[in-house]
This record gives sequence, structure tokens and C-alpha cells, in this order.
Amino acid sequence: MNKQLKLAKRPDGMPEADTWTLESNPIPSIEEGQFLVKQHFISLDPAMRGWIREGKSYIPPVELGEVMRAGSVGEVVASKHPGYQVGDFVSGWGGVQQYAVFDGTKSFKVDPNLVPLPVYIGTLGMPGMTAYFGILEVGQIKEGETVLVSGGAGAVGSIVGQIAKLKGCKVVGIAGGPAKCKYMKEELGFDGAIDYKSENMYEAIGRECPDGVDVYFDNVGGEILDAALAHIRMHARIVICGAISQYNNRDDVHGPKNYLALLVNRGTMKGMVVMDYVRDWGKAGQEMGMWMAQGKLRSREDVYEGIDNFYDTFLRLFSGEKKGKLVLKVLED
Amino acid sequence: MNKQLKLAKRPDGMPEADTWTLESNPIPSIEEGQFLVKQHFISLDPAMRGWIREGKSYIPPVELGEVMRAGSVGEVVASKHPGYQVGDFVSGWGGVQQYAVFDGTKSFKVDPNLVPLPVYIGTLGMPGMTAYFGILEVGQIKEGETVLVSGGAGAVGSIVGQIAKLKGCKVVGIAGGPAKCKYMKEELGFDGAIDYKSENMYEAIGRECPDGVDVYFDNVGGEILDAALAHIRMHARIVICGAISQYNNRDDVHGPKNYLALLVNRGTMKGMVVMDYVRDWGKAGQEMGMWMAQGKLRSREDVYEGIDNFYDTFLRLFSGEKKGKLVLKVLED
Repeated sequence: MNKQLKLAKRPDGMPEADTWTLESNPIPSIEEGQFLVKQHFISLDPAMRGWIREGKSYIPPVELGEVMRAGSVGEVVASKHPGYQVGDFVSGWGGVQQYAVFDGTKSFKVDPNLVPLPVYIGTLGMPGMTAYFGILEVGQIKEGETVLVSGGAGAVGSIVGQIAKLKGCKVVGIAGGPAKCKYMKEELGFDGAIDYKSENMYEAIGRECPDGVDVYFDNVGGEILDAALAHIRMHARIVICGAISQYNNRDDVHGPKNYLALLVNRGTMKGMVVMDYVRDWGKAGQEMGMWMAQGKLRSREDVYEGIDNFYDTFLRLFSGEKKGKLVLKVLED
Repeated sequence: MNKQLKLAKRPDGMPEADTWTLESNPIPSIEEGQFLVKQHFISLDPAMRGWIREGKSYIPPVELGEVMRAGSVGEVVASKHPGYQVGDFVSGWGGVQQYAVFDGTKSFKVDPNLVPLPVYIGTLGMPGMTAYFGILEVGQIKEGETVLVSGGAGAVGSIVGQIAKLKGCKVVGIAGGPAKCKYMKEELGFDGAIDYKSENMYEAIGRECPDGVDVYFDNVGGEILDAALAHIRMHARIVICGAISQYNNRDDVHGPKNYLALLVNRGTMKGMVVMDYVRDWGKAGQEMGMWMAQGKLRSREDVYEGIDNFYDTFLRLFSGEKKGKLVLKVLED
């Protein structure tokens, strides 16, 4: 059987347990041009909260009754597609289910011997690509600049900071709690760490970035974005990657009240969506793979088990109770 | 005697009559390398509110006891500077006073026979340059795009919209009241007009820009910026030129709560300060002068009389009770 998690209702505020329902359905059959993947891991991302919201966004919302959208990685177990053989491993948009049918348009092959499979939905998948293109293409970092990144211990932020270090920047990360701060400084090599759960953000950014911030990579929005704007330097770039602090708001989003710092400092605030760079994902993956092989780029995945535990695991995205990239193993041994 | 308006205190919220004091002092003498200008007109700009705020901004604040900063235009009446002769007309930073001493570093000569003197502190001065570089360099408008401009009947916005029309854009202006809306459509040639005093902004922008907004030129901030963000198209540019609705706030600035539209639409919000383009003002002035001579660019000045009336005239910036560029005649006949 194929356990599938389907969207049952659109949440108002933080999703509740009945936002999704788990079903057991027959394993689907495949047609000419398709192949069947037995999924091992699925990716849990803050963007999921956006995907279940009604209305226009950068991709259509998940419809009620549809399998919940998710990136995934697994093994081909049946194929009527000339390009994919049984035994191939693939990453793609398999959704939150144990078996997924692909047609080759939204997947790519991966090598399980090179790095562990979860890395393909983490550092070498969407979060890693978001970090790579966000900080290099949108952030346009230059050697010697000061880079501030929120969600600095997370799937995207940890890679943003490490890439910025590789490019000769000073990097300060923001995360919640002493353990994550220690991780950013001691394992990721950041120059500074700020604990948003215990520190005054305005003062802490001033302390860690006394000459101001050239590039702020924002994953969180809210008051941390306000505080970062208050410290930008001339010609600063603010990369708007996400706003996890705002995704479950019942009311309005908290707008960045210090946005006029953009005027004073001739700053730029720019939004990004990683899908725009799909053409260059391969090239970026090669470079990041090399950095990983050389020990210059660390990837950490926090893997939970069981599709039945989707909801509890999902909540960790917003509580911050996770270490690195959040992954759910849906393969049952 | 030289009537001078000096900053007496820093206002909290909307400036009051005692924010400035008017003094009568002897006409200053000049030293080698200086020249004395009998000022005819001074420019009243929303930026003045920022200049009297304490703390770092794009230029230092006006200090207490200092003559209030203002752009001005007048006639040289004494000179010990080889480049300026008695009878020359000059525009520069003369401040709110009847006589000002210059040293040639912050002034340029103007020709009173070409256009009326107030135009040199309006369309061919700082507001016009702001419009020119803001919409062309920062906004990067392209033929066929839809341009939305707030403060569309004002000194900057009226020029922004006309330049966008000249470049083949569709232009929609936002202003307060039916007279200004009529002015934007009938005299400035805008394609659409929105009265923010009587219309629901979200609906009105949707009506006038049914395919969305490519470039939004923002002079006002607040809820109008929110509504504009809700209508941006892919790769839209938001030019942050000012935020007149927020300058007199006692509390926090209203942050743009729809800023995540930048993410969804890969939009850019960018701040600008016209001083950055000083090197190219001459070139821009020539082009705008030609447009004016050809009848393609209209300039409207609303001139009030008497340095004693500075405060009442200043208030018109925020009440909107003016028609085009606000100018005060300080010359006493």
C-alpha cells in the first residue's frame, strides 16, 4: 500500500493536526513514459506553509484533497521511461507519500554513493540552491563585506553563511538558543552569532556588526528584519528569501518599519524564488559538491522517521526544534 | 536687513509654529572667493521634515540655531568670486533667508530668460532631477510598462509621470481630490488617476492597472505603498523616493506589510537620493529643458509670498493644499 498525506483543509494561523489526513491507497500503476519511485525521504520546508494558502503565489497552491507537495528522494522500482531504470535513485517533487509516479520532467538522478540521500533534498537540493543563488546572484557579495543571515543554523542559512565565508566575507548568524549559536561559530565557522531568543536584536547586531551590514539574507521577517534594516550600510542588499516568523499570522504581516533605511542608504530589497535558477542548478550542485568533498561546506540533516509523524515534524519548522535541514524518512523498512 | 529663519527646536510629530524663529540680522559681508545672493525664491520640500530630525541620515541634520536648509534661486548683488558677477542669477542651497553667501561650490548659474526663476528650484532643480533619475535610473522603465506614481500631481510625481509617458509607458497617478486627478489626466496626460482621499486604494489600483504594476514610484509610503505592492507584476521595481505620509509620525513608521509580494514576484524595492546623481544633473537638465521647450513637459509652481509666511506655506506640503511645486517668494519688492 501507499500511504499518502493529503491536504484536508486550509489552516487559519498555525496548521493543526487535521490540516492533513493520512490515507492508505494502492500503489499506483504506471503508463508509458512514467516511472514509479519508492520514496525514502521527503523534505520539510517553511515554504510548505505558503503552498497550502489559497490564492496566487509563485506556484499554484496545493488543492484540497491533493497529496501534500514536497521535495523527495527515492529509488526507481518500476519504469516505462527510457531514461530511468529500476535501481536508479532520483530526487524530485514526489510529495508526502511513500510511492510517487514521475514522468521525467521534474526529477533528476542522484548518486547515493556520493553523499547520503537526504543531502539531495538539503544542501544539494532546494535549500542549498536557494542559499547559493540567493547570496551570490541576488546578494552579490564581495570579499570583505559583512553578511548577516537569519535562520543561520537552518537548511538555507547555514549554507548562505558558509558560502559567504568561502567568498571572504565576515559572517554573522542569527538563530534561537545557545546550542545553535555555538554550532554556527564552532562548526560552521561564522564570525559572530546572535541568539534571538535571549538578545535585544538591535543591540546585538550593532555589537556583532559594528561597521554595519552590507548584505542581510532574510529567512524570518518580522522584528529581526526591522533590526537588520536599522544597521545597513550604504548600498546594502537585503535578500528576501522567506519570512518564517510571519507565515502563520492570522492578521497582517509585520511590515519592515525601518524600510526607509533603504532610502537613506540607497539600499535594495529584493525577493527571490529558487525556481528561477533551475537551469543553473546542475552547475551550482557541482561546485557545492566539490566544496563538500574538500571539507569546506558542511551539511547537517535532522532526520525523523515515519510518514505518520509528518505533522509533529512539520511543527519543528516553526518551533525551531531541529538541527539543520529537516527531513522525514517515509520508507518503511 | 536680512530676514532669516532659524531652527529653534526639534519637533515631535508635525512641526509647530515655534519650530522656527524669524530673525532680522544685518546683511552679511563677503570675503575673498565669496559672493552675496539676494534670494528671490526658496524651495519648500517634504525632505525638510527629515533635515530637522536629529541623527544620521543621508545628509547631516540642520542644527538648532542654524538657518533652515532650503534650495533657492536669486541674483548676485556683490561678488569677490572670479566666476560670479553682480547680476548673475544662481540656484543653490541658500537656505530660508533673504540674503545668502555662497563660495561657488554649491551653486550653479541659471538664465532667467529661458524659464521663470521658480522652475530652477522645481522641474529643473532638485524635484525634477529626483523624478528624472528616479524613474529612469532606478525605475528602469521600458516602453509599454505600467507605471504607478503617488504624489502624482506634486513636484516630483508630476514629472515622473510625464517622463514615463514620454518613454511610452502607461501612467497612473495617485493624488488627493478631484481637482488634482483632473489635472493629472487632462493636463499631464496620465492614462489614469486615483483619488486617495475618496477611493479604496486596493480596488482603485486594480481598476486602473488591471494587468498589474511594473514600476511603482513611491513618494508617500503607508497604506498606499501596501496597496501598490499587492498589485505588482513579475520583476516589478519599487522606487522609494519618499514617505510623506510617515514623516510626522510620533510612533513607528508604517512598514509595508505586503513586502512579501517582492518575493512572490521577484520584485525589487530600492531607495534613492538625488544627490548621488549630481554629476549628471547638467545633462538631465538639458534634456528636460528641451522637453519643456517642445511642450512635452509641463511644470507647475505654486508660489506663495513672504518669508514671514514660511510656516503656513510649509504646512501645505503635508495637507496637500498646493498645486505642483511649492515655492516661497522671499524677495521683498
